[in-house]
Amino acid sequence: MGDPAGVGPETIVGAWSDAAVHAACRAVVMGHPGVLRRAAALVGTQVKVVEIASPDEVPSDRSTIPCLACCAHEAEQVPPCTIDARGGQAAFDALRAAADWVRSRQADAVVTGPLHKGALWAAGHRYPGHTELLAEWFGADEVAMMLYLASGGGVAGRVGLGVVHATLHMPLREVFGRLTSERIAACCRLAEGAVRSLLACREPAESHRGAALNDAPQHHEPPRIGVCALNPHAGEGGLFGDEEERLIAPAVALGKSEGISIEGPLPADTLLMRAAGGEFDAVVAMYHDQGHIALKLLGMHHAVNVTLGLPVVRTSVAHGTAFDLAWQGRAETGGMRQAMLLAARLATSGAAHQRGGTGSPSRSSNSAVRSSIS
Amino acid sequence: MGDPAGVGPETIVGAWSDAAVHAACRAVVMGHPGVLRRAAALVGTQVKVVEIASPDEVPSDRSTIPCLACCAHEAEQVPPCTIDARGGQAAFDALRAAADWVRSRQADAVVTGPLHKGALWAAGHRYPGHTELLAEWFGADEVAMMLYLASGGGVAGRVGLGVVHATLHMPLREVFGRLTSERIAACCRLAEGAVRSLLACREPAESHRGAALNDAPQHHEPPRIGVCALNPHAGEGGLFGDEEERLIAPAVALGKSEGISIEGPLPADTLLMRAAGGEFDAVVAMYHDQGHIALKLLGMHHAVNVTLGLPVVRTSVAHGTAFDLAWQGRAETGGMRQAMLLAARLATSGAAHQRGGTGSPSRSSNSAVRSSIS
Repeated sequence: MGDPAGVGPETIVGAWSDAAVHAACRAVVMGHPGVLRRAAALVGTQVKVVEIASPDEVPSDRSTIPCLACCAHEAEQVPPCTIDARGGQAAFDALRAAADWVRSRQADAVVTGPLHKGALWAAGHRYPGHTELLAEWFGADEVAMMLYLASGGGVAGRVGLGVVHATLHMPLREVFGRLTSERIAACCRLAEGAVRSLLACREPAESHRGAALNDAPQHHEPPRIGVCALNPHAGEGGLFGDEEERLIAPAVALGKSEGISIEGPLPADTLLMRAAGGEFDAVVAMYHDQGHIALKLLGMHHAVNVTLGLPVVRTSVAHGTAFDLAWQGRAETGGMRQAMLLAARLATSGAAHQRGGTGSPSRSSNSAVRSSIS
Repeated sequence: MGDPAGVGPETIVGAWSDAAVHAACRAVVMGHPGVLRRAAALVGTQVKVVEIASPDEVPSDRSTIPCLACCAHEAEQVPPCTIDARGGQAAFDALRAAADWVRSRQADAVVTGPLHKGALWAAGHRYPGHTELLAEWFGADEVAMMLYLASGGGVAGRVGLGVVHATLHMPLREVFGRLTSERIAACCRLAEGAVRSLLACREPAESHRGAALNDAPQHHEPPRIGVCALNPHAGEGGLFGDEEERLIAPAVALGKSEGISIEGPLPADTLLMRAAGGEFDAVVAMYHDQGHIALKLLGMHHAVNVTLGLPVVRTSVAHGTAFDLAWQGRAETGGMRQAMLLAARLATSGAAHQRGGTGSPSRSSNSAVRSSIS
């Protein structure tokens, strides 16, 4: 559910009204039922929030939102749009409950609503966000954040467009010290695995603007990965920096030697444009803004944040708590909807990218994917 | 004309077929008539290239391309799609001729086709490009590159969207040493002046996808400038870097104290998205890719490069020589067309931003704006 003070609760209620979501998964909310009821009243939906204690109690009835009460009662006291330690603790508790469910295979995927880092820190949890908490809990040492957009609108690709970030939440100045060929190569592998998972799921990608999708034969081609340069004009032959030659080209060579269909380093501005046009399935960006500028322009309200490298499927909305418009009933719910659909899709495809598998579904016997939203 | 080996000549011939260009200005090509004739034959147009020696000889006939022969004969010998010193020298000579014409007021604006830096350097001119040459020739000490897109497509603003770059062609690593509050404030002033020029010209902005334009009353509001942060999340309160507080915020405060309607530092990813949506007329970007990723995604083939801070109007295509597709008759000509239209518009509006003027046209007595294309 994320932070009760932010847009998380209302985006869940909003996404609940979408039939495609229910066709793709059976979802359970981890959070505070009272907060969720308040969000339902705000949105003006007839949906009923019921408390459950185990997966067996998840109703198939779409007019009911099952909620595992996992937060302290005071989560309900958090004022809207406010940085509050109780809100940060509630987001933490919800994430913990969701992690427990996927760890024990009571759920197949975790979808997270936005938390506020200030509130999380005020509650004593000094982590940048959900991703780092999950990485620690699951003992994953090489994770990367992928921003993902489904096909449609400005994205023409056969499986949408994913941008994997080699570095993320740090001063731009620190990027130079953090980038290594090993890290970049690891991101290429993660990107390739993620695209394989998307290709493995035979269902057409969810199109957020109803664009026609490319046809099936293309699905047999391997994932096409593009790697961004760090410097303008890809370093212009060394004149504008040497990281391309020193760090990125060796990583690309390594990826190629492993059989990945990969190109780079390419100037970021033209690469991202070409990728949006369908020439690449995924792009590896060197730093936060390089990837985020592109994907927010292409479709901020539909972008999904996917954590690659975890042993479980985890997606998230790509936006924050949006305290400037939370609890006014006007939050965009497209991001939560897409995050739920993508989580279901990755879980259905066996999340090959996260288990180093072959792309064959490992859970096809499930009648429905179970997602927990924290 | 730019480098004869690149797409410059064919984009000129292509843009020549557009009636809007001729309605906006009388254009003269600075270059080699033989190269231009070859481009006309390639494109398959009936247009005739004639050599002229002075502005008096510029025909009003649209089926004729007047060309001032200003390059050595060997420019015609440059093989297509090749880095060749003779091509670099031809681009240099064409720019020099165009600069001479605007300096002596025989022309009102310079529009440049792409040159190849390698060829320019091979010819012994060690400059990053046209911009730096013009800055030196005109003794301009504070110039900035603005990438501009007219309204339409993904750009909803009343005068399109301009992104002014505080730093440009350098290793990303060097940006930190080059950014100063003075430079950022200067870019804010240049951005404001450019938007004032665009607002001063009453003609509707050229729409590259035929979108309806916002109506006139909005034109009375002052230019709205957004300033990008350097770090992700605008530094997240100092956690992800201090340049926002140390350099950018003081520059914004200075701009505000001078009466500029300005906001920032704002996270670059959301600012650029909001600006594309029409909330800002211009954005100041801190480094090359920050601005280029956004504008290339929004409309690479229609983007125009404008040099702010020169005492003359200068626009350019935003793309390069494109040796991968030059001289095949399939170059996009939208960029050249937009560069010519914008040059005419800025010249008509008196190029207020470049002369520190009030925005009132200084050359409205001209029957037509005269542009020279080098």
